Amino acid sequence: MQLGLIGLGRMGGNMRERLRAAGHEVVGFDHNADKSDVANLAELAEKLASPRVVWTMVPAGKITEDTINQLAEVLEAGDIIIDGGNSKFTDDGPRAERLKAKGIHYLDVGVSGGVWGITNGYALMVGGEAEQVQHCKPIFEALKPAGEFGFAHAGTHGAGHYAKMIHNGIEYGMMQAYGEGYEILLASELVHDVPAVIKSWREGSVVKSWLLDLLDRALDDDPTLANLKGYVEDTGEGRWTVDEAVRLGVPAHVLAASIFTRFESRQDDSPAMKAVAALRQQFGGHAVKR
Amino acid sequence: MQLGLIGLGRMGGNMRERLRAAGHEVVGFDHNADKSDVANLAELAEKLASPRVVWTMVPAGKITEDTINQLAEVLEAGDIIIDGGNSKFTDDGPRAERLKAKGIHYLDVGVSGGVWGITNGYALMVGGEAEQVQHCKPIFEALKPAGEFGFAHAGTHGAGHYAKMIHNGIEYGMMQAYGEGYEILLASELVHDVPAVIKSWREGSVVKSWLLDLLDRALDDDPTLANLKGYVEDTGEGRWTVDEAVRLGVPAHVLAASIFTRFESRQDDSPAMKAVAALRQQFGGHAVKR
Amino acid sequence: MQLGLIGLGRMGGNMRERLRAAGHEVVGFDHNADKSDVANLAELAEKLASPRVVWTMVPAGKITEDTINQLAEVLEAGDIIIDGGNSKFTDDGPRAERLKAKGIHYLDVGVSGGVWGITNGYALMVGGEAEQVQHCKPIFEALKPAGEFGFAHAGTHGAGHYAKMIHNGIEYGMMQAYGEGYEILLASELVHDVPAVIKSWREGSVVKSWLLDLLDRALDDDPTLANLKGYVEDTGEGRWTVDEAVRLGVPAHVLAASIFTRFESRQDDSPAMKAVAALRQQFGGHAVKR
Amino acid sequence: MQLGLIGLGRMGGNMRERLRAAGHEVVGFDHNADKSDVANLAELAEKLASPRVVWTMVPAGKITEDTINQLAEVLEAGDIIIDGGNSKFTDDGPRAERLKAKGIHYLDVGVSGGVWGITNGYALMVGGEAEQVQHCKPIFEALKPAGEFGFAHAGTHGAGHYAKMIHNGIEYGMMQAYGEGYEILLASELVHDVPAVIKSWREGSVVKSWLLDLLDRALDDDPTLANLKGYVEDTGEGRWTVDEAVRLGVPAHVLAASIFTRFESRQDDSPAMKAVAALRQQFGGHAVKR
Repeated sequence: MQLGLIGLGRMGGNMRERLRAAGHEVVGFDHNADKSDVANLAELAEKLASPRVVWTMVPAGKITEDTINQLAEVLEAGDIIIDGGNSKFTDDGPRAERLKAKGIHYLDVGVSGGVWGITNGYALMVGGEAEQVQHCKPIFEALKPAGEFGFAHAGTHGAGHYAKMIHNGIEYGMMQAYGEGYEILLASELVHDVPAVIKSWREGSVVKSWLLDLLDRALDDDPTLANLKGYVEDTGEGRWTVDEAVRLGVPAHVLAASIFTRFESRQDDSPAMKAVAALRQQFGGHAVKR
Repeated sequence: MQLGLIGLGRMGGNMRERLRAAGHEVVGFDHNADKSDVANLAELAEKLASPRVVWTMVPAGKITEDTINQLAEVLEAGDIIIDGGNSKFTDDGPRAERLKAKGIHYLDVGVSGGVWGITNGYALMVGGEAEQVQHCKPIFEALKPAGEFGFAHAGTHGAGHYAKMIHNGIEYGMMQAYGEGYEILLASELVHDVPAVIKSWREGSVVKSWLLDLLDRALDDDPTLANLKGYVEDTGEGRWTVDEAVRLGVPAHVLAASIFTRFESRQDDSPAMKAVAALRQQFGGHAVKR
Repeated sequence: MQLGLIGLGRMGGNMRERLRAAGHEVVGFDHNADKSDVANLAELAEKLASPRVVWTMVPAGKITEDTINQLAEVLEAGDIIIDGGNSKFTDDGPRAERLKAKGIHYLDVGVSGGVWGITNGYALMVGGEAEQVQHCKPIFEALKPAGEFGFAHAGTHGAGHYAKMIHNGIEYGMMQAYGEGYEILLASELVHDVPAVIKSWREGSVVKSWLLDLLDRALDDDPTLANLKGYVEDTGEGRWTVDEAVRLGVPAHVLAASIFTRFESRQDDSPAMKAVAALRQQFGGHAVKR
Repeated sequence: MQLGLIGLGRMGGNMRERLRAAGHEVVGFDHNADKSDVANLAELAEKLASPRVVWTMVPAGKITEDTINQLAEVLEAGDIIIDGGNSKFTDDGPRAERLKAKGIHYLDVGVSGGVWGITNGYALMVGGEAEQVQHCKPIFEALKPAGEFGFAHAGTHGAGHYAKMIHNGIEYGMMQAYGEGYEILLASELVHDVPAVIKSWREGSVVKSWLLDLLDRALDDDPTLANLKGYVEDTGEGRWTVDEAVRLGVPAHVLAASIFTRFESRQDDSPAMKAVAALRQQFGGHAVKR
């Protein structure tokens, strides 16, 4: 089927390729004219037959909001907009309402898979109404991995981004669990070949996973990770996950600790620990570092 | 090759089967005569040609200690004892020393794979000296999964159990990460099909893993886990992992939180939270539950 | 000086008493006519000379919002509204703007001290402009404890409620620290008199505090806290503190854990731990509770 | 009464002074002859009438162990040894047994108060038998603060050091709670005078404590703690507290997190976070720091 696709960066560009390889007709737009199939959104709309399906894959927040607003100007009642970016789930309900006022349908899709999705397929979590999910099924089928997994109609508007947010929260927790275990292994006096231990877990163990495969891959390249700093960014979903846990009254020790360790990894010095050092000095005369 | 195998419970029994299927000659001993191939350890020793290799697969602690002591009585210099149980790594060094005084070699092996090992193979992490590891390679090859993964010579005596301990610590952390994410999904007003979301992650996602496959399997059987209580035991390795983190000065927020939540899951009431409730009542006149 | 005071519950009622004891003229309003000095807000405004100062001490959220809106109808340019309730700090900036449009000034005050404030005085943290803080100084002086402590002009609009929020976040962390220590003491085989240990810390120790005094007091009444359940509510500030830590990228392991343990204390069963139990059963055939 | 006191460093020296001011006769020994009242332990024993009471105040571990062994050589049946150092509670039972074989009694005392104890008095937690506790009461009375608090007979041998250990665990948790709250305040856009907020909490607030007084004192000296690094040592008790929580199955999220943040404060780079950074790079092509 036909698909308009806005945003042809690392993710969008790969998705266009995967969709075309599956036989779909993709009309892509990007601000970078070299990547773009059309000059502007109006031309994109023209090239698609009604009802049009247009997928946005641009940075979350204002850029996605503006893109969808502009897109709504060139689409018609009955068309479908799909946001596959990392939008916050709270944007989706109001956005769906706004579009509905124009008769335009809306789906939100959480997309997981990173740079490997072009070959492995992407896990897709979709929020919205069943009729539109059904209509777009061929697109989802092409993007998702072969086999029975990798796709869910998660719930109503926002549920797709919500599921992706939780996916990322869990991802942070898993990465932190591996990281902490790895660090203890490194510190052990008994274990002399940490990369071999990691590699041994890739089959037969309870902790085998794709992330573990990637850790092994990283250690193959750089057995002591000497070329990396322990400095880790976060992309919003981990924070939102903790906010949701707090809002809903769900204990989330592990997910919260995982985001806090990332914050710590980016601090040159810790004001909290300065206060603790100051207290130790005050009551115990303990030495401090200046 | 020949192998003596002591302890034919869920793990040991399956291992005997897998080894025999691979063409090895296993002489098994168990206190349950129905499972046992021999009447006692002396007979087991008799049936094996020198140098003998005997694998113990019995409960960690006193039972393993006693078994190995008794075994040392019937073995000879040059024989090899392998402990594949969940012994604490600190037992291994002294044990190896004691056996060495009799000329008996020792290997410690961390075995992962649970009830699935019989078909999938077991991940094996081995501690001890290279010569004995080499000698026992055929056994390890038969137990481990097919392919390049699932086996490591981790280091010196104790390193096998150490690596398994960390494996389990990480396992606790991963399970807790999935559990917390699952609970937030359940609490969400937007996500209407949590099992479908879990299933969607099994391919294409960053969080795909064997544990996730098992969570999906559990939800297939019981979509709301209505038949389970949130009561979780622990088996020692998770605790030892935290002790090691503390001893070595390694921050392990996630691994520690994962064991603490298990403790909490087993408490009818929390003395700590009683103290907190008492404090709120004292300073704020806040209502309490009696 | 004169003060209008709206909300004469546990906190407001005590504050009226403390203010009158200090010689101030308080005109109180409450929906409960028995407590109220006036019939309605219009009468309250009439009884106060310009520029009027009116303090609201009602539940945060919609009730405070409505009360301040109604109050603004009966006040005049140059008057000052002080919100001493537990409003979220994000309400204060917009509220100050709205009132400013009518020429009415606004201060937000975080008030700590609970039921003890009437005798000990209240710690007050104020947000707003210096001129109004100065004008209301006599009121603050009467409410705060004698001596040099217990009052701060924390910053701009919202800073008073912000400081109070952080105060409560810290309070949660301190209470949890005492609670955990208390529980370990109780579990110890060596310590036979836990209340005596708590009492010993009240002077000379590094952990002496008012909260510790209160814990001792609670143990005097009920040495095993047998009459309490370990069930602990939270009042919003602890959650907001974690949200702020997440927003600002501040690691807050202790403050977050303290709110999560409260969530746990209120759960009959934990969906997260059900998922963990399900996983253990799946991979290890471990027994579960049904 | 008479007391032998071994170890005249910061703590022991101050204690000698406080005891003498209370009219007790203290015979002090220290390896530093300038501080010492006697040349060796034999002379110390000679100067004390039977039954002798000798208090050791030397570094925990081997030094305390050796000191007590040497002391036992010069003492007689009926004498009492008190260890007031930071010994691990597990040392006390065996030590008491060993001394008992010689007829020497033993008390373990946890001492809190730091450099302030000389003027404020020390909180004392004692483990051992009631008869010896009673005998030494005058010493305890002189060391403890005036008033009803600051002393407990906590339980059997080891209970004194146990109670002190938990005291320090709680201390770590409280310091971390203050530290985290302080850091959020600093990061806030609204709060412009963080030291004033801290100061305001010293009276009337729920979080008032001696530690808070000290934090205020530190901020008086250095309002931004600019002269300190956020690098914090730990002295063993915090680690043992977590080990005990783990051993006893007590959830201790806050106490564990407080020790882990100290570990983090001392790391130049985090191997765990290097692993996490490596994973992000692998799956998402995310930029890393080298």
